[in-house]
Amino acid sequence: MTPAASNPAVDEAPKPKKFVIICYSGELEKTWATMILASTAGAMEMETTVFVTFWGLQTFVKDRKRITGENWMQKMMSFMQRPGASHRKLSKMNFMGMGPWMMFKLAKKYNVSKPKELLEMAKEMGVHFVPCQMTMDMFGIKPDDLIEGMGEPIGAATALQLMTEADASLFI
Amino acid sequence: MTPAASNPAVDEAPKPKKFVIICYSGELEKTWATMILASTAGAMEMETTVFVTFWGLQTFVKDRKRITGENWMQKMMSFMQRPGASHRKLSKMNFMGMGPWMMFKLAKKYNVSKPKELLEMAKEMGVHFVPCQMTMDMFGIKPDDLIEGMGEPIGAATALQLMTEADASLFI
Amino acid sequence: MTPAASNPAVDEAPKPKKFVIICYSGELEKTWATMILASTAGAMEMETTVFVTFWGLQTFVKDRKRITGENWMQKMMSFMQRPGASHRKLSKMNFMGMGPWMMFKLAKKYNVSKPKELLEMAKEMGVHFVPCQMTMDMFGIKPDDLIEGMGEPIGAATALQLMTEADASLFI
Repeated sequence: MTPAASNPAVDEAPKPKKFVIICYSGELEKTWATMILASTAGAMEMETTVFVTFWGLQTFVKDRKRITGENWMQKMMSFMQRPGASHRKLSKMNFMGMGPWMMFKLAKKYNVSKPKELLEMAKEMGVHFVPCQMTMDMFGIKPDDLIEGMGEPIGAATALQLMTEADASLFI
Repeated sequence: MTPAASNPAVDEAPKPKKFVIICYSGELEKTWATMILASTAGAMEMETTVFVTFWGLQTFVKDRKRITGENWMQKMMSFMQRPGASHRKLSKMNFMGMGPWMMFKLAKKYNVSKPKELLEMAKEMGVHFVPCQMTMDMFGIKPDDLIEGMGEPIGAATALQLMTEADASLFI
Repeated sequence: MTPAASNPAVDEAPKPKKFVIICYSGELEKTWATMILASTAGAMEMETTVFVTFWGLQTFVKDRKRITGENWMQKMMSFMQRPGASHRKLSKMNFMGMGPWMMFKLAKKYNVSKPKELLEMAKEMGVHFVPCQMTMDMFGIKPDDLIEGMGEPIGAATALQLMTEADASLFI
């Protein structure tokens, strides 16, 4: 028996930090903030979970989907807010799409990746993107409507569990 | 002397998790998010405090109150934003009340409780709803304007104390 | 050798709490909430850092600057949203400046300091205001455009480090 055996901590790697984002908003700027933080946390090897709920879920619908939902109310709501990570709008100064265009132009100039690219990066870094079951039900969004690589839907209780065990959690 | 006496932790129940929400927004969707999280945290027996501040306080004014405040500015502000948990508006797609109506319709279909019902549930689960003293002063809201069962008003210092002692806190 | 020497904790002051705000929004009310929390946390001797990013950075541009940025897109964006802590607008009920005027009037009546005064107070209390490097790049904001006393710009990784080490962090 070695001393290490009696003190298992000696051999272990330091416990990774845990970081949780409640991704609530579907606006371009907030989506961007979420993706920058999530991909950076992933790159820092934090255990990162993004719980995607309410308008946030629009961002994770496949870009090519034009309308989601089963009944007319759900269809109308998805139609009013074109889903997909590439179709987010600014919360202000949208100018019929002019605002986002300028933002993307500036981002490119300064080597800042678009939300969609950051999302792919974050997934590769092992960030968990997990949809909210209740939001899927209310908006009639099916697992097949969502981008590849998302986790199984969870509820508020599981999200709270994750948050209270995390080193930091943000509502964005 | 028993072994338990020398190690009091043995007899104790696990310490409950603490969860804090800064309820800042008065929008329907964010109110909903707050109420879902608060009632779920209450049901999970977390020590849950909702600090209600700025526009959030509008949600906790009694539904039947049409106007609050003492001077014309306070009255005008309350008039512009009808107070009460049942009168919250969507941040977008409000369509003169059509948006919330659709949301409530969908919620009912999928067995999601309205914010007002979740608020009652949360109170029964022991969630503490605490108004911000400064917001009450600035908007001229009296204790009697607020729904039953709220705690005594507190200030930013007490809210910060609660947050830094909590396992998770969110600004919604 | 005293017992204290073998147990250094005995002589130490209690470790100060750490508090982090991600100041993302440039709206008057949220700026106010940020400044109230930051100055209070500073007064409570918490180690307080405000990471200023996206629209939040507009608040920290000198009041007298009318336009910032190098190219026309950056200039246009700054022009649309007049920068400076004294020029924040309400997220709703702005009424061409009438809403903020009423808010300031009410604040004065009830001895609530304006955001700009709270910002000065917070700086004196030792609160660290740190700009986001990426936001400065994208909006073409130079260190000289910003108010005195801000820290060196940092990136998302450093912000994440601060958050996961803090006792509480909020995204406002």
